[in-house]
Amino acid sequence: MIDAIGVFDSGVGGLTVVSALRRRLPGESILYLGDTARLPYGSKSRDTVTRYTRRNIEFLTERGVKAVVVACNTASALALPDLDMHDVPTWGVIEPGARKAAEVSRGRVGVIATEATVRSDAYPRALRRLRPELEILSQPCPLFVPLVEEGWHDDPVTEEVAERYLRPLLAAGIDTLVLGCTHYPLLIPVLRRVAGSDVALVDSAESVAEMVAAGLAERQLEATHPPAHQFCVTDTGEAFTRIARRILRDPGVALEWVEVV
Amino acid sequence: MIDAIGVFDSGVGGLTVVSALRRRLPGESILYLGDTARLPYGSKSRDTVTRYTRRNIEFLTERGVKAVVVACNTASALALPDLDMHDVPTWGVIEPGARKAAEVSRGRVGVIATEATVRSDAYPRALRRLRPELEILSQPCPLFVPLVEEGWHDDPVTEEVAERYLRPLLAAGIDTLVLGCTHYPLLIPVLRRVAGSDVALVDSAESVAEMVAAGLAERQLEATHPPAHQFCVTDTGEAFTRIARRILRDPGVALEWVEVV
Repeated sequence: MIDAIGVFDSGVGGLTVVSALRRRLPGESILYLGDTARLPYGSKSRDTVTRYTRRNIEFLTERGVKAVVVACNTASALALPDLDMHDVPTWGVIEPGARKAAEVSRGRVGVIATEATVRSDAYPRALRRLRPELEILSQPCPLFVPLVEEGWHDDPVTEEVAERYLRPLLAAGIDTLVLGCTHYPLLIPVLRRVAGSDVALVDSAESVAEMVAAGLAERQLEATHPPAHQFCVTDTGEAFTRIARRILRDPGVALEWVEVV
Repeated sequence: MIDAIGVFDSGVGGLTVVSALRRRLPGESILYLGDTARLPYGSKSRDTVTRYTRRNIEFLTERGVKAVVVACNTASALALPDLDMHDVPTWGVIEPGARKAAEVSRGRVGVIATEATVRSDAYPRALRRLRPELEILSQPCPLFVPLVEEGWHDDPVTEEVAERYLRPLLAAGIDTLVLGCTHYPLLIPVLRRVAGSDVALVDSAESVAEMVAAGLAERQLEATHPPAHQFCVTDTGEAFTRIARRILRDPGVALEWVEVV
């Protein structure tokens, strides 16, 4: 897809970023790749996630995209820093999320993310570069993705799990909570109830869309064709289609199967 | 490993089968492969699971194993029936689990498993072949594997999830419950509390070991070398090592990384 923005995630969570991109840049085409055959990334090692990320970016650039958004926090945190693939501008989701949190925080930031993202220390490093005095607490939340995928995104069990994960962060008095995984925006009603109204919830999707808009303008890469969208996955599963439709608020959306080895 | 039994699973859950094999066949060597880079299989499609299963069996046979045990219910249910790889005897875990359930049931059997295993209808078909009059109810339990992997195998949240999953089966009056995923034996304390003492819990690991022992004897393939074991994974993660040690009750066990594409 010549002239499209390529977006990839380990699964369909990255479609929360696609939604934000479509609102901010309604004239742009999007080619989405969800690596559903190999998800999740969040419990896997840096080497494995880097190998998968490299192949996903190759898939998108072989299809002619003009820019790539890595809409997966784990891939952004583990693979992007060391990846030397710069045929097209490539953006991750860590930096924009950190920027937004650094803007709104009164001093104490909590970060929730996958195990791999937390272990990478990517958010604390990005936050400290922006505001060295920030206090930062991180918490891996490995059950959140399966709970969202089970459709229990607003459920008493999920609330109990969220209470357990957030307890140490809330006890430490965080004022800002970074949703460090693209699935987590679907949990906002639960997280809002558990965290209370005083804690700012930072979803990086909007900031990513802002950064992409600025980046395309700067490089004079804005769309010259009418927008068209394509959604590819490496494995077709009913559950993926169900969540994709919920995120995109489009009950007719179809996922096309592609092979990426 | 010449003379070894090759065992593979999508992750480390299949080590519950290895434990049973070691108890039943203490003189046999085992080469284990956990496809942790691509787990879980239970939410993925038949084509994807078949492709992964084929490659895993090739990996084991290239290393010279004399027999293969597919210690993953999803791979056994989706891939084994259509797989034409018979260089060495190959056994899955569905048939032995079904046999044991058919032996003990008073007429009404519940099956809990991954989404893919339930959708395949493999257990009900195997059970009906053995006892056509059985009533069979199936329930996918996609949160059980992530709960075990989070280390919450005996936890109030897990009990609440189990209550929700088992409610329709218990309401229908099942007398036997097939644990149709190799992770589930780790949940036996929780399942026992939720299901009560009148429901027989069927873990196929012991029946698999029985079947393998008989199959090796029949083909005169019993071990001729002193036993040695090797545990390979396609991705190294701390969580996998932690669960492997819990299952094998061996705090020193090391997982070796191998590439299987």
